[in-house]
Amino acid sequence: MSAASRAKRTMPEMEVIVLEKSEDVSYSACGMPYNIADSDRDMTDLVVRTAAVFRKKQGIDLFTGYCAETIDVKNRTVTGTIDNREPFRFFYDRLLIATGGRPKIPNLPGFDLRGVVALKSLDDGRKIKAYIEANAVKKAVIIGMGYIGLEMAEALRARAIDVEMVKPGPDLLPWMQREMAGVVKQETEANRVGLHLGHGIKRIENAGDHLDVCCEGLTLSADMVLVAAGIDPNSELASDAGLETGIGNAISVNRRLQTADDAIYAAGDCADAYHVVTGQKAWIPLALRANRAGWAVADNICGKPAQLSGISGTAVFKVFNLEVARTGLSLEESHRYGFEPVEVTIKNRSRAHAHPGAKTIWVNLVGDKKSGRLLGAQMVGCEGVAHRINAAAVALHGRMSVNAFFETDLAYAPPFGPVWDPMLTAANQLLKKM
Amino acid sequence: MSAASRAKRTMPEMEVIVLEKSEDVSYSACGMPYNIADSDRDMTDLVVRTAAVFRKKQGIDLFTGYCAETIDVKNRTVTGTIDNREPFRFFYDRLLIATGGRPKIPNLPGFDLRGVVALKSLDDGRKIKAYIEANAVKKAVIIGMGYIGLEMAEALRARAIDVEMVKPGPDLLPWMQREMAGVVKQETEANRVGLHLGHGIKRIENAGDHLDVCCEGLTLSADMVLVAAGIDPNSELASDAGLETGIGNAISVNRRLQTADDAIYAAGDCADAYHVVTGQKAWIPLALRANRAGWAVADNICGKPAQLSGISGTAVFKVFNLEVARTGLSLEESHRYGFEPVEVTIKNRSRAHAHPGAKTIWVNLVGDKKSGRLLGAQMVGCEGVAHRINAAAVALHGRMSVNAFFETDLAYAPPFGPVWDPMLTAANQLLKKM
Repeated sequence: MSAASRAKRTMPEMEVIVLEKSEDVSYSACGMPYNIADSDRDMTDLVVRTAAVFRKKQGIDLFTGYCAETIDVKNRTVTGTIDNREPFRFFYDRLLIATGGRPKIPNLPGFDLRGVVALKSLDDGRKIKAYIEANAVKKAVIIGMGYIGLEMAEALRARAIDVEMVKPGPDLLPWMQREMAGVVKQETEANRVGLHLGHGIKRIENAGDHLDVCCEGLTLSADMVLVAAGIDPNSELASDAGLETGIGNAISVNRRLQTADDAIYAAGDCADAYHVVTGQKAWIPLALRANRAGWAVADNICGKPAQLSGISGTAVFKVFNLEVARTGLSLEESHRYGFEPVEVTIKNRSRAHAHPGAKTIWVNLVGDKKSGRLLGAQMVGCEGVAHRINAAAVALHGRMSVNAFFETDLAYAPPFGPVWDPMLTAANQLLKKM
Repeated sequence: MSAASRAKRTMPEMEVIVLEKSEDVSYSACGMPYNIADSDRDMTDLVVRTAAVFRKKQGIDLFTGYCAETIDVKNRTVTGTIDNREPFRFFYDRLLIATGGRPKIPNLPGFDLRGVVALKSLDDGRKIKAYIEANAVKKAVIIGMGYIGLEMAEALRARAIDVEMVKPGPDLLPWMQREMAGVVKQETEANRVGLHLGHGIKRIENAGDHLDVCCEGLTLSADMVLVAAGIDPNSELASDAGLETGIGNAISVNRRLQTADDAIYAAGDCADAYHVVTGQKAWIPLALRANRAGWAVADNICGKPAQLSGISGTAVFKVFNLEVARTGLSLEESHRYGFEPVEVTIKNRSRAHAHPGAKTIWVNLVGDKKSGRLLGAQMVGCEGVAHRINAAAVALHGRMSVNAFFETDLAYAPPFGPVWDPMLTAANQLLKKM
């Protein structure tokens, strides 16, 4: 919708057709856990702009209930079905594939049972909220421990629902420095969420008045099971049409967001991006990039050439009282991309010496010994994390050395941090190792 | 002290002599307003390290009560008096002048009266606190409306003291974009602080049981008068020795912190710096630069050459519920330094669409039409300002264009901001004007 709106704003005479499988367009998907947490709020609060506004005020030909199924790149047509019944066919001069992603659902018995849910669309959110209320859910199991799983754990605890989380891998947040991941673990457990690591999932069973999640060496009972084990890109429409896919099976696009076919663009969670640190392709499906890419596609289609330099993989989430953030590469990822990385992890205070209310803040920085470059940053803490990470993100976009980053003049006042910002203290420690 | 500590750590065999006029070394000066706000806290809480620690644990020859009065650059000696009585003389191989700054006190009648105070040293803080308690201060007048004045207004209001502020100039925070300065004005007045702009100060009079601050067209009565009309660098020791001073009368130093005499360094509030945006000298006395310069002097003296690239003038302060921050140049400063600046000021939300608790956040960005460079940023808001400004600061150090800044991948989660960070939205608006 960001591409459609921008194209129509730039060239009102252009015919802009949008085909949307569901009935919902333009909503704050990331806001769903916070909405689910609050029984008084309606899911519709998250709608930013309704279909009617897109149609009437913006003049976009928006077709909801239209599921695109085939792209004929030769004849430049898209075909599909309306509400699973009637067929449709549209011609295009330029096509944008913005099919997003879908939750990974393990191909195991019982994942189709009533009470097994996943969270991606607004309709998913509505269903989860309705299910909790209709069934007076008291106990939930979450499969997966990524940020959506953790945000949902917090949301469900806010509704006094018991939460157990389970995943096959041995580590919570495997991309995170171990001590810092331990801080997240502790905070989550302190809020009475059970974390069961290293238990492969075998099946879900209907046990009469509840569900049993059967794992290796563990069975968890639940009124509701949320599957939050990551997402896959909806790239089949593209690959079936012969368009190239690559990393994470996402649709391969160049810096202008074009696929292998010049007339076809892809943007959003279904498409890949260049990473500014590695210079290579990455698939890190996040909201800002999706919006930004939508705009760039519109500009390119409207004859205003737009190239996107790339992403640094900056992300933040809140879990109970903690802010957890990252940008760029972890130590392990840096090794994988051929750098000669060193890292440092420091503990510091979120406010100045002797200022009341200070909390601990952890900062991890990774630098490249060969080039001196800053490669990545991670942070955890109760305050001052979410926006602090952006300074490191900007440094990555500017290809700054750790030394140049250390020399930056950052803001100081006692309520907001020590004289030396924790990032600078970390950079100083890292320099000693480089 | 940061220079002395670092030099001694690097070269324990070096004889490091520190001459300090007062009895206090190494304290959080910026923390004083917050300490004054709280009658239960002792000023000594702000001491980071005591003289005893510097002497015994670090082996620094720290002489308190020693006031340096003359530098003989030819014979490399410093002379002065001990506790205003005994003379002293020290030889040096390398000298660091770190004499700091002092509050500007107008040369007007009555500024020497009892109850007229200023805040710079820990002893000043102690005196103010003692004065408030001994005299049961109910009403204070603050002369000046800079960040120390505003922080002190908040501190005194926290102690239920009536506060009136007065200054000769017509504008609150003249460096700030007018609408945003208006937000600060409104917040300050909403907390029942009287702001009297455009009233030149004539004298202070003893009116028996109180003081009268006599201004043009206005007389304000007070139990205590705080003079917070800016600071001057303590550069006379240097200029008397023939060392060059420049902008703001601060001691001129090169990127290695050397004065006109190779053997003499200057650092802290008494010395100037290069500004990374203008490339020219600036005098912006702030804590981080002072500490950083101290370290660089120690490194240079210890034979580890250190050059500082410069400052971007990043600063933040809190006034009641507002965070106020800036980095780089304002529009007016940009004009003065020969840029062709354009600015944009936007209002945005501190949290995502439909996320509860969102507050307004104002962002001002200035860019250079000629080069495309980002020149400065200002922000005001109830949350998310203090650390957000650092992203812009890093961009200034990286000499980023507004377009490159707009392309940065910043963190997003609903509790912390909109999908497009307010800075990116501002950058996008600014690009349209460039």
